[in-house]
Amino acid sequence: MKGETIEAFLEGLKPLIDKRIEKWIPRKYDEASMRFTLGKPGYENSPVSATKSVTEPIWEFLDRGGKRWRPVLLLLVAEAFGAKREEALDLAVIPEVIHNGTLVADDIEDSSGMRRGKPALHKIFGVDIAINVSNAMYFLPLLAILKNNKIPDRKARKIYDAVTQEMINVSFGQALDIIWHKGGAPEDITEKKYLQMCAYKTGALARLAAKIGAIIADAKDDDIEKVAEFAESIGVAFQIQDDILNIAADEKLGKEFGEDIREGKRTLLVIHALQDADKTDKKRLPQILDMHTSDPKLLQEAINIIKRYNSIEYAKNYARKIVENSWKKVEKTLAESEARKRLKMFASFLIEREF
Amino acid sequence: MKGETIEAFLEGLKPLIDKRIEKWIPRKYDEASMRFTLGKPGYENSPVSATKSVTEPIWEFLDRGGKRWRPVLLLLVAEAFGAKREEALDLAVIPEVIHNGTLVADDIEDSSGMRRGKPALHKIFGVDIAINVSNAMYFLPLLAILKNNKIPDRKARKIYDAVTQEMINVSFGQALDIIWHKGGAPEDITEKKYLQMCAYKTGALARLAAKIGAIIADAKDDDIEKVAEFAESIGVAFQIQDDILNIAADEKLGKEFGEDIREGKRTLLVIHALQDADKTDKKRLPQILDMHTSDPKLLQEAINIIKRYNSIEYAKNYARKIVENSWKKVEKTLAESEARKRLKMFASFLIEREF
Repeated sequence: MKGETIEAFLEGLKPLIDKRIEKWIPRKYDEASMRFTLGKPGYENSPVSATKSVTEPIWEFLDRGGKRWRPVLLLLVAEAFGAKREEALDLAVIPEVIHNGTLVADDIEDSSGMRRGKPALHKIFGVDIAINVSNAMYFLPLLAILKNNKIPDRKARKIYDAVTQEMINVSFGQALDIIWHKGGAPEDITEKKYLQMCAYKTGALARLAAKIGAIIADAKDDDIEKVAEFAESIGVAFQIQDDILNIAADEKLGKEFGEDIREGKRTLLVIHALQDADKTDKKRLPQILDMHTSDPKLLQEAINIIKRYNSIEYAKNYARKIVENSWKKVEKTLAESEARKRLKMFASFLIEREF
Repeated sequence: MKGETIEAFLEGLKPLIDKRIEKWIPRKYDEASMRFTLGKPGYENSPVSATKSVTEPIWEFLDRGGKRWRPVLLLLVAEAFGAKREEALDLAVIPEVIHNGTLVADDIEDSSGMRRGKPALHKIFGVDIAINVSNAMYFLPLLAILKNNKIPDRKARKIYDAVTQEMINVSFGQALDIIWHKGGAPEDITEKKYLQMCAYKTGALARLAAKIGAIIADAKDDDIEKVAEFAESIGVAFQIQDDILNIAADEKLGKEFGEDIREGKRTLLVIHALQDADKTDKKRLPQILDMHTSDPKLLQEAINIIKRYNSIEYAKNYARKIVENSWKKVEKTLAESEARKRLKMFASFLIEREF
């Protein structure tokens, strides 16, 4: 493991995680897997139709990739608190599948046409199937708790509580994001309010991953909260990095260039630029954002304003700072270990990424 | 309580249930209720925006009414197994709020314009807000478990397990319904397969209500399953009744006339008619269904075919029969009580309703 990059570590775990997802969401249903998933039917199952309407769309989406960093975070936290990887592996799929479910829903909500270099799921299967599988993806991975009698009731409850809390928080984050970029935000969006929205929208599932890992390892409640905060800061930093990459986006991301500007999003970059901007720019930037335009010239004009006030530098530093601060608290509670070392590397990797 | 109709009983409980929903989903957020719902914020909350984007849409929808029969079923089952109503009341909101969440999603998935006499929620607030609140409605009522330390871990886990299982089953029921009425069903839809779809789509949340009621009352696992099956049969019968009312729908339902025909749904009525139909009708009915037409003449033609083979009578009898059969099993396990009597009345009421 010496000298191994975190990228190689992520790549190495990916097939293991995908195999585990198949345990709860098979690629194809037959009578046995239908009964495993749904219980004994009173009438008669339709595995062919279920395959077509549930598992094919889900796997079409999951197979597009993604870094699977949430399960890896969960595993690293579990190991850092002294659990064995195998104990945590079944549960590691939970934040990953849920996260992908939220992406499917997000793309419908944002009218996004593309995701990971392919048409958004609803563009292929229809809005109806897409909404429904996104819902299924919130509950199917919880079979990992439901079907595991080895997890004692107390731990199972704690994991379910964590899922409930963080799913509520995700939906509030998304709600704020939507209402704000729709224009006519009902209140002034300060930096702190924006960051709280990110903490809910992107931090919550990172929190969930860290919490499950720590619960499995029987960590103390105090330590669970500390590592959850660390994970949240990674999530927030990840979102900030996403915002930065978005205004510099190209094919690599598989997303459209300047999508955030087109959607009128008040990102940290925008909020910071507006704070420092001169009178003309202060007026012009919100104007362009509220147009919801796809005109590359206007998108570029908005990006130029953002760059003029060094908002990218500011946001990058901010992201680094919050992760460093929350790491310091976690570092104290964790014994020296390979997993602890990796956890730190992992955080830097995620916030410094260029893809 | 003597001589009281079940309708009056439902009406009497409604304000009590709505008050309980407000405990978990306030009509307006302030800093305190945000913290109660989401935990302590690391940055800063936005209660005004959360009210606008989460709780206003949810309450706009909940305030349209509905019979609230799922919480009543939960309460009756809890009481019939010996629990006090107060013990169950907090949890009774779970199947109700979730059910309303599925309606919000269904209307987007089916492109329905109306619900309960008003525009569908996404027509008022937009598809983005509507999808997101529907997701929030799956998790917000679970605060009733999360925030209740008096429920022992074993029971809490069982309730969470029930939520997980039935939410998975709901999403499969919805998936089958969608893929079948989209045309090009990948397999032959037999009566048994249709009924299984109903058991998942409409039976699952009735099962959930009954299970939670029985779990709270500490019923044996065997008895929980029996009462769940009874509830499922109510759900299936309710769906059959819905199908019947749909082809005779008028303003009372607040839905569009012949919507199921327009959507091309293979309901029990259609499946039965196709079994008995002569050659001409056997060809014509699927033709009209696959047109996805709104032409009242064509809708009426399809309805006439269905009526020609006494499919309405057949479906009505079927619905009665499955509820009677499952009731017989439950009746044996329950001691004589006011709640048991009401439970039976309640079932007949739901399947004989004309609205």
